Parts: sequence; structure tokens; C-alpha cells
Amino acid sequence: MREAGAGGGGSQSDGLESLSITTIRMLALDAVQKANSGHPGMPLGMAPAAYVLWTRFLKFSPENPFWPDRDRFVLSAGHGSALLYAMLHLTGHDMPMDELRNFRQWESKTPGHPEYLPGSGIETTTGPLGQGFATGVGMAMAEAHLAAIFNREGYPLVDHFTYAIASDGDMMEGIASEAASLAGDLKLNKLVYIYDSNHITLSADTRLTFTEDAGKRFEAYGWHVQKVADANDAKAIEAALARARQEAERPSLIIIRSHIGYGSPVQDTFKAHGSPMSPEQVKDTRAFYGWPPDAQFYVPGEVRSHMLQAGHAGAVREDEWNALLDDYGKEHPELRKRWDLMMGGRLPDGWDRDIPFFAADGNGIATRKAGGRIMNAISERVPALIGGSADLDPSTNTALVGRGSFQPPRTGDESVQGAVPGPWGYEAANIAYGVREHAMGGITNGLALHGGLLPFAATFFIFSDYMRPAMRLAALMNLRVIYVFTHDSVGLGQDGPTHEPVEHLASFRAMPNMTLIRPADANETAEAWRLAMTREGPVALILSRQDLPVLDRERYAPASGLRRGGYILSDSSPELPELVIIATGSEVHPALAAYEQLAGEGVKARLVSLPSWEIFEEQGAEYRRQVLPAGPAYVSVEAGAGLGWRRYVGTDGAIVSLERFGASAPGEDVLKRLGFSKDIIYQKATEVLDKR
Amino acid sequence: MREAGAGGGGSQSDGLESLSITTIRMLALDAVQKANSGHPGMPLGMAPAAYVLWTRFLKFSPENPFWPDRDRFVLSAGHGSALLYAMLHLTGHDMPMDELRNFRQWESKTPGHPEYLPGSGIETTTGPLGQGFATGVGMAMAEAHLAAIFNREGYPLVDHFTYAIASDGDMMEGIASEAASLAGDLKLNKLVYIYDSNHITLSADTRLTFTEDAGKRFEAYGWHVQKVADANDAKAIEAALARARQEAERPSLIIIRSHIGYGSPVQDTFKAHGSPMSPEQVKDTRAFYGWPPDAQFYVPGEVRSHMLQAGHAGAVREDEWNALLDDYGKEHPELRKRWDLMMGGRLPDGWDRDIPFFAADGNGIATRKAGGRIMNAISERVPALIGGSADLDPSTNTALVGRGSFQPPRTGDESVQGAVPGPWGYEAANIAYGVREHAMGGITNGLALHGGLLPFAATFFIFSDYMRPAMRLAALMNLRVIYVFTHDSVGLGQDGPTHEPVEHLASFRAMPNMTLIRPADANETAEAWRLAMTREGPVALILSRQDLPVLDRERYAPASGLRRGGYILSDSSPELPELVIIATGSEVHPALAAYEQLAGEGVKARLVSLPSWEIFEEQGAEYRRQVLPAGPAYVSVEAGAGLGWRRYVGTDGAIVSLERFGASAPGEDVLKRLGFSKDIIYQKATEVLDKR
Repeated sequence: MREAGAGGGGSQSDGLESLSITTIRMLALDAVQKANSGHPGMPLGMAPAAYVLWTRFLKFSPENPFWPDRDRFVLSAGHGSALLYAMLHLTGHDMPMDELRNFRQWESKTPGHPEYLPGSGIETTTGPLGQGFATGVGMAMAEAHLAAIFNREGYPLVDHFTYAIASDGDMMEGIASEAASLAGDLKLNKLVYIYDSNHITLSADTRLTFTEDAGKRFEAYGWHVQKVADANDAKAIEAALARARQEAERPSLIIIRSHIGYGSPVQDTFKAHGSPMSPEQVKDTRAFYGWPPDAQFYVPGEVRSHMLQAGHAGAVREDEWNALLDDYGKEHPELRKRWDLMMGGRLPDGWDRDIPFFAADGNGIATRKAGGRIMNAISERVPALIGGSADLDPSTNTALVGRGSFQPPRTGDESVQGAVPGPWGYEAANIAYGVREHAMGGITNGLALHGGLLPFAATFFIFSDYMRPAMRLAALMNLRVIYVFTHDSVGLGQDGPTHEPVEHLASFRAMPNMTLIRPADANETAEAWRLAMTREGPVALILSRQDLPVLDRERYAPASGLRRGGYILSDSSPELPELVIIATGSEVHPALAAYEQLAGEGVKARLVSLPSWEIFEEQGAEYRRQVLPAGPAYVSVEAGAGLGWRRYVGTDGAIVSLERFGASAPGEDVLKRLGFSKDIIYQKATEVLDKR
Repeated sequence: MREAGAGGGGSQSDGLESLSITTIRMLALDAVQKANSGHPGMPLGMAPAAYVLWTRFLKFSPENPFWPDRDRFVLSAGHGSALLYAMLHLTGHDMPMDELRNFRQWESKTPGHPEYLPGSGIETTTGPLGQGFATGVGMAMAEAHLAAIFNREGYPLVDHFTYAIASDGDMMEGIASEAASLAGDLKLNKLVYIYDSNHITLSADTRLTFTEDAGKRFEAYGWHVQKVADANDAKAIEAALARARQEAERPSLIIIRSHIGYGSPVQDTFKAHGSPMSPEQVKDTRAFYGWPPDAQFYVPGEVRSHMLQAGHAGAVREDEWNALLDDYGKEHPELRKRWDLMMGGRLPDGWDRDIPFFAADGNGIATRKAGGRIMNAISERVPALIGGSADLDPSTNTALVGRGSFQPPRTGDESVQGAVPGPWGYEAANIAYGVREHAMGGITNGLALHGGLLPFAATFFIFSDYMRPAMRLAALMNLRVIYVFTHDSVGLGQDGPTHEPVEHLASFRAMPNMTLIRPADANETAEAWRLAMTREGPVALILSRQDLPVLDRERYAPASGLRRGGYILSDSSPELPELVIIATGSEVHPALAAYEQLAGEGVKARLVSLPSWEIFEEQGAEYRRQVLPAGPAYVSVEAGAGLGWRRYVGTDGAIVSLERFGASAPGEDVLKRLGFSKDIIYQKATEVLDKR
């Protein structure tokens, strides 16, 4: 396959094109070699495709990488990061050559896998395969949604493509399958993915592992599929991209048969995938491309100006777009206001005005149901709120009534089962993800990354496991996304242990940047939503399936205490307590009952509601000491793994927790049998009191 | 679609067949109604398919549900559990009618979703969608492997099918896509899946979410796809199953167009999916089927004997098979010995004899590399060991050299890149999973559930996130599976934060039944493998990418201390220590350096290696107190989230942990900058000592 002396970008490329492509390849190679770590094979194989895409199609303006109508580019095959960095450098983004020299070093802009860096042209963090694929789908959905809302005759304010380069590994990952199926359903025609089909993965020839007909599979999903037989055939790549952009109804996959490590002695072997080459191999590769043997991080002058030209052209288009936006504002002042609000990521004044207050009620309401009412109250005033569930709306209570079903236009109507009242089309805010949690997680990231939207994703708490890799990326990028996780404990009952979270609170408390809030009643849920809407970084709301009493806030402290993560719900005495019971979520209620009994018996007791550890830990030490002073006996109560609670209850405190899987039986039955009852809490409290 | 009065199993069924199918439907309906909770829709729709499969094809012997050559049946659509329970009851399994009456009640055999119950006919736990699909693929792989090893001319000792019923939701889940793609690759022709295509999911018509051409997709994977237009057409179902069983090279998918809640007033609506019906609706449904209005858990006598007949026929086949096994033993005594050993789940005498001892070495060896040598030493003596990685063999070091590549026969050879030396075919033990972690997790469960094998699965620790839902099921079922997770901390370095575990140790410590072992050096790794091979329940080995010194066991305590989870590696004084440093894995080494420095300065110090919290907690309180006495100052060191460590270091101890994401830079650089150096540990230790 390797044709010695063919060099450059292949026979069908002209001189400057060929030289540019070689420059890209050599920059990526230099970065990997200097770091002595990285993945040279993908950039060597795919440089021509990247060159064609960036110079002939991609709409971007390096001086304003935040231009809302830029095309989005996702390197789903994140291990090929050196290719992306080389492209960003050459096209004039804020990616100086020193950063390429600093590839994979401490605090460089050029980490081993691309990390979301607003303003640099790195649109999202990739590396864990499949994630970028789904994230790009989310970006395209955001584009479709904003276009449907804002575009008006003569004003195509939102009109951009989402491109990605994906690898064999991406194609194998389940998240990509889920996202591809949904993208086909949704007819996202402005999604154009290039599949780097090099037949080699990290460890093997794909003959060992991946013999399916991927093109046919994507056709089955409803995609437009093209094949390019030679990754060096820039003309064919250009033609395929042009055709893909003309597609009116289908997302596009362009399968490019490429050669990993093209032009190097390790071409077509997995040795080219993830390891730097030997000096000999580098020398040989340079010779193949006719590159000066000692050139390092070298960019010929004509390549420099040629590649910058793409950015200049984009800047001109951005100027035109800015003029369009000005005119748009004159003709559609209300829409323009809304545009500025949404694209600025701001909430309208009074956005939370309609959030209900829930009257005290001993029977109460499940926090998932309260959450549904609250979300709907927010949704009416916050057009940026968009999202959906992985086929669980009737149970998660997350449908935004009146805001319709996010669907391709003219394909159906409200009478389809499961459609949400309101518009049918891309302008709608309710996304039916199907049973595809992982794609939902990745798409939610894409919705947030695109800009203009505040996305939420809902499912049962247990199924957070299915979307965990995507949630981790949201945390790593510190994205503003809201997870609505209902059915939060063994209290859900009869669906049984496969559906009952146990370890999940602890497992997310261990994840940096992730904020969990597990409210105790409807009014804490309202406060939790207030907080989630304004907080940086991902927030997970953990809500009950079962009804919970609405606490009497005349008698107990106001729910606004939730804003500090944890607060004193009740003190039985003005003095320093001798006993503190800490609880979260549904367990606040049996804890309260135990507290009342103890207080009735004269114990100086305190009940603390601690819905969010993360927020509580952000408070000053003084506040924390005030709520949880040194001295008293401590009991914590939470229907989940006890891991971590020792921090709050101290060495001698009691932890009422769950150290086994749940069981299938009516929820109250399960909770009682597993120890979450007033009596058990009372007993544990008297034990810790007696020990002192 | 609902044809009033059509009743029974459809027009093409004879009387007894029709009556049997109605009985199945009514039993499932009764169970759901009595529990007032559950999913009636799927059993009503799919009872005919279940009837045909169980009475005409499925090979089982109710009196010996452990018969190794039985067909395996997986209800991937686990929410249809009432259908499975009805079938088990009617066919004579250990599933008394009282258990059906006790559906979804505390400690019944009939939980909301099927829970693996050896001996009951429930072959695996399902409910989280997609899991059963992948688990079935693992069962079929186990069958192919054992058949290749044991079958001899005239002795088809292993010759059974794996069947499943899967739903729309299963088809949408990424794990099922991954597993389907791999099953096609592997040409698992004895895998026969029935797809209950009812066009309705929990919340919606599939027109909203799932418009792909699933049949075409499966053809693209290399499956044989058939369609049955009417779920009540027992003859067509029978014909399709018969054809599927004749397929020589492809797994089979039979897409049955069914009607959820068939025959009920909520037929074809998602109201039939997950909620019991009203008494009126039940009455109406009974009338549709011509069922006595007041009959409850009723089985007509002729149905009873007819359905038991299938089990009786199976028992006869089992007798024949037992005779075959006897003859086989006479003709192939060595194979028979091996058969008994493997099917008995026992390890051969001296199985660990070749596990190397690693000499003390200051430069040392990465525990992943030591692990590779250890596994290979085990593999030569333990034929039951089988497994692979999700495309990371060269990095996880988990290839079993000489045991070849698990591939369909006659499709390639060792010269394919990534093939492992040894046989090429189903008899080989190295499974190339491709970049499909989630399917790997589910398949590993299937390999374990089938019997005869001890499976392992390997990937980077970070990608445990991708397979977490399957790992949770392994824990719930307490399966003997071994996870080999390498690249265990930010010490992996340049691949950066997307590849660096932080929260993962804590997140699995919170999961019931999961045992983690993070060895500190090569000899602890050997002990960890010894333990993993003999322990009940899933074990995860957490191994380093970077080289770690091999501790001098003349100077420090022997690595066999690992068998107790944690042990005193060194005491600087025979007296009670004033300082205890606890560390795990790679952090034992900087901790040791700090310990030595402190000891040199006269501090009465102790260093504890704590590779497994779970095993340590199983030791008696006395041992634990002996290792971690009350009194001293404590410091813990682990390159991961500190969540949970307070338990060991007490209120005043110091936790050297990681409360942020990692970074891309050379590993040593990252570790030092993030605080995992001798100097930081020394400093923390002096601080806790000073505080006292």
C-alpha cells in the first residue's frame, strides 16, 4: 500500500495542497516524537481529510472562536489529538507552536487527548471512544433547535454544520450506535461524520474484531453513506463532503479507507497507533514525504499563508453574519432579545417566579412529582431549558408540557403515543431519547457545549451507571447540565435490586466537579432546582419515587437552608445538642420521627438535613461547625452505601446505611426491613448516646 | 389490531395449544394483578412465542436444571418476568404456584425482574435493558468453546442453543449493539434471539424514537434475520425457529411483530407496558380470551399435563446424554477428567505452582506486567481461564500466550495482526472484544453463568465506567469473574485526565459484593491473583501502568499478608507505633520512603499496605485492631478520591488523596505535582504528629 516516493497528499493533489498536507503530517509527527508519547498513526493517515475539511468547508473565524454560527468540529478519535493541534495552529487559532512543542506536558494546551478549551477551537473533550460521536449529535440537535426557533425568512441566523472524525473504535462503542440510531431518527442532515476506516485498532487488525458492514449498518439507521477508497484522494474527499452537505434529510457518514501511519515504515500496523516511532523510522518517514531530514516543527512560508487563508475567509463570513444579526435585530427585536439572552447563557429576570411553594402535607408528594411541577414552572420562562428522558417520562415526570416533541418536522403529530403537547419539530424542547442512556449523556454534553441551551437529562438513578462515562466528561468539562435522577433508593420497591441504587450516591460523591442534591421534600426540591439552574458544573438531582411528606416549614427551618448544602432542620433545645441526626432525602422523615421521639424524652437533639455534601463543603468552616459541632453523638441516615459518612459522624458515630443490594417488595416493606425506620434510627441514637 | 373474540393463541393454533397459551397469559396477568405491580403487556404479547420455544425446541430437564447441556434461555426483556415465571411453573421447574401468587414480594422467587437463581431455571438476572442480550452472547461463546474442546467424533457432549427474548429497548441499548456486532464477527450460529417488536416502549410509540431498520442493521452485523408478521402465528414462529437452528454460520434474529397487551383494552398502548390493569380491564381481557371471569392462577388439567410433557421429554434426553457422557469417559478418560474438573468449577491440584516469585528490585516492574506473567503461569494449568481485553492487550498484558485467538474456525490465522500465538478457533482462550467494554462486561457474565469457565475481562481502569452496569450485575449475582484493570491512577501520565481514574476505587468500594485488590508490587500481584482465582464473587485487580519497585521481602513483611486484605509491611519499633501510614498500590512506595525517613528520625512508625478494604473488613476485629490500633496518628495515601478513608485514619488523621481530575504530563510529574511524593507524605505525617 505504501508507495515509496509518492509523498505529499497523494497524486491527485496540487503542489501547495500536497505540501500543506505534508506539513500537517510532519507537525503531528514532531509533536509525538518530541513528547516521546502519543499516537502518530491517525494524523499520518487522515491529514488529507482534515486538510480538505478545514480549508474548503469548515466555517470558522480564528479571531473569534466563539462565533455562534461557526461549524463545530469534533475529533471523536481523540487519540489523534496531534492532528487537531496541528490544524488549529496552522489555521490561526490560539495554538502557538510552543504548545505543539509542549505536547502532553504539564498545563500545556496540547494534552494527550483534546480537552475542551473555550476559545482555542477545541470544542469538546474526547479520548474515551464514542463520546465525541454522541456529543456531535448533541451539537447538531442544538443547531437544529436554535435554527427552528430563531431563523426567519432572509435571516438564516443559525446555519452551521457539525463535523467529526471518528475511528474504528468509535464505531464499535455502544454509545456511538445509540447516538447514530437517534441521529437517523431525527434526520439531522447537518451532521457530517468522517469515518477513518484504517482497519487497525490499538491491538489488532479489525479482521479479528470488526467485520461487520458498518456502511450498511448506518444505512439501516437512516444515514446517507458514502465511501472514499483512498484517504489520499483529496478530490474524492472534497466531492463526498460536498454531497454530504447537500443531503436534505439524513446525517452523513463518509467512510474513508485510510492507512494508519501512512508513509511510515509501520504503516498499516498497530505499532503506528499509540507509540512514537524510532528515530530511524522517523527519518524514513521524512524521506518518504521528501521532508528535510532535520526539520522540526517546520512550516514552509507558502503553507503558512495558504492555511491562514481559510481562517481569513471565515472572518469575512463572520463579518457578514454580524451584519445579518444587526439587521435581524431591527426587524425582529423581540427575537433578538431572546437570542442575546440565550446565547449569553443568562436567565431572564423573574425566571423562578412561578416555582410553586408546597403547603405542609403529611401525605405529601414524591419529589419526582414535585420536580415535574417545578420544572414546568421554570420551563415557561426559560426557553433555554431543553431535554428529555431515556424513555421514562411518565415515571421521571420530566415532560415540559406545551413545549412539544423534538422531532423532524412534518413526520408526525401529537397523536403519536408519548408525544408531548406543543409543537412537533425541532423547535420543541422535549427530546425522546429512547432507551439510550449513554447517548443521552453524550448528547446532553453536546447540547451544553453548543451554547444557547441549558440541557437536562432524566432517567432512574440506577441507570446513571449506563451514562456514567458521559457524565464524567461533563464533570471534567464543568458543563452546565442538569441530571434528573428519580427512583433514588430501595424505596422504589417492587422493581427490585436491578433497579435499586445502593452505591450511586457515594460513587458520584467521589467524582470531582459533580454536585449531587437529594432533597427531602417538595420545597427542598424547589430550592434544588433553583440552585441547579444557576450553578456552574453538572448538577444531579436525586428524587424519590415514593411520596414524601411536605415538611411544615413553620415548625421546621425553611427549605432555603438547602442553598448551603446542609442545615439545621430542627433543634429540640437552644443549648448545644447532645445528639445530632443527619439525614438526606426520604430518610429525613423517619429521622425526624426518631428525633421527635428522642426530643420528647428530653434528649437535646438536633436534626440536620444534608441534601448536598458538595455544597455544604463549600461553606465556610464556621458554618459547618455551627451545623455539625464537635461534641455531640452523631447518627447519619441514608438509604445507600455508608462509604464516606464517617467524615460527618466521626469515629464513634452510627451510620445507618445499606451495605447490601436491595430487594423486590413493596417499597415501604423494603425500607423497613433494611433498617430505614424510625425505630432503628431511634435505637441507633440511643446506642450512641449510651456509649458516651 | 385487536380482534375481539379471536382469543387464544391465534387462529392457526390447535385447541390445546391455544388453551396453553391462554393459560400462560392469564397466569402472568394474575401475578401482576395480585401484586398490583408489574408489566402485563409483554407476556400478553409474547406468550405464543414462549409457548412454541419451550414446548417444541428448548432442551431442559426440570428435575435437573443444572444439566450442563441444557439450552440456555435469557429473558433479556426482564420486565416481562411474569411470562418467565409462568413458563417455569408450567414446565415443572421449582417454581410453585405460591411463588407466582407472591410475585414481587419480599424474598419470593418471583421478584419484579428475574434474579439469577441456580436450579430454578432462571439463568441470569435481567432488567437493565441490553444486559441479557450480551449475557446470552457470552453463554453461546462458552458453548462454542467447550464444544470445541470436548466434543469428539460421535460425542457431541456440548451441543446446545442459547435463546433470548429481547425487546425494543434491548435493541436500542448500546451494549446490545456491541454484543450483536461481536456475535456476528464470531459467527455464533447457535445463538437464536427473538425480538419482541411491539412498537411500544415504556413511554412512547417507537415512531418517536426508533425508526431504524433493525433487521437490516443485524444483517450488517452478519446475522441471519427473519420476520414473523403476527406474534399469534405459532406455526410461523415454529418455522422461523426451525430455520434459525439450521443456520450454520450466523446468529439468528427472529423479529416478531407483536402487540403489547394483546387482547386487553390497553393493547398497543404504553399503558400496557408497566402498570397493572384496572379490574374492568382485566375482566374485559378475560372475556376476550374466553377465560372464566373469576379464575385466578388457574391451570386447566389438560394444559398442566401438556406443558409438563416438554420437561419430561427433556428428562429423557438428559438420560441419553448421561449415557453418552459415561461412554465418553470410557473412550476419552483424560478429557472426561478435565470435563469433571472444569464443570465442577474446581482448580487442578498445583494450579498455582508456576506463579513466579519476583526478586527484590529497586527499579521493578509494573504490576500490569507482573500480572501478565502471573496469568500466563496460571493459564498453563487452568484450562477454565478464558478472557480478553477491549482492544488493549498490548497495554493490559493479558494475552494468554499459546492459547490462541477465540475466532470462528477457518477464518484466519495467527498472522493476522493482534492474533495470539496458539490455536485459531473456538478452542482458543483469548477473546478479542474490540473496543466494546460494555459488551465485554455482559459477555463475561455469560461466560461465568454458563458453567465450566473462569472468565476475566481486561481494560484500563478508567473504562470500568463503560462496563459498570454489567459489573453491577456480576456483583448482584456474585459471579466468579476477574477484572484486570490496568493504568490505575494519574500515574499513567500523558494520556491525561480522560484516561486517569480518580473516583473509581471509591465508586467500587461502595458496590456490594465487589472485591477490589490494588497490589503494591509484583509479589502482591501474585498473591492477588491467587486470591482472585479462589474467591466467590467478582474481583477487580487494579494494576499500575508504571514500573514499581519489587519490595525486599526479607526486609519487609511477606506479600502473603495480602490474603488478609491489609497487613503491617514494616514497624520501626517493637512498641505501639505513634504514627501509622496506610497506603495502597503504587503509593506504598513513596509512603515507604517517608516512613523510612521518619523512622530514621526516631519516630515510632508503622507502614501498612492495604490492598483490599473488602478482604480486610472480613478479618476479625482483633486482627484489624492489631494492624490499625487505636492511639497512633494516621496518614493514608492513595492516588484517588479520599472518600471513605476517614474510616481508617479517624477524625484527626490526614488523607493524602486526589480531589480533582488528573492531567496530561509524564506520570512521575503528575504524581508529584498532585501530592503523591515522599516529601508531601512526610510533611502530612509530621503535621498529624505535631497536632497530638
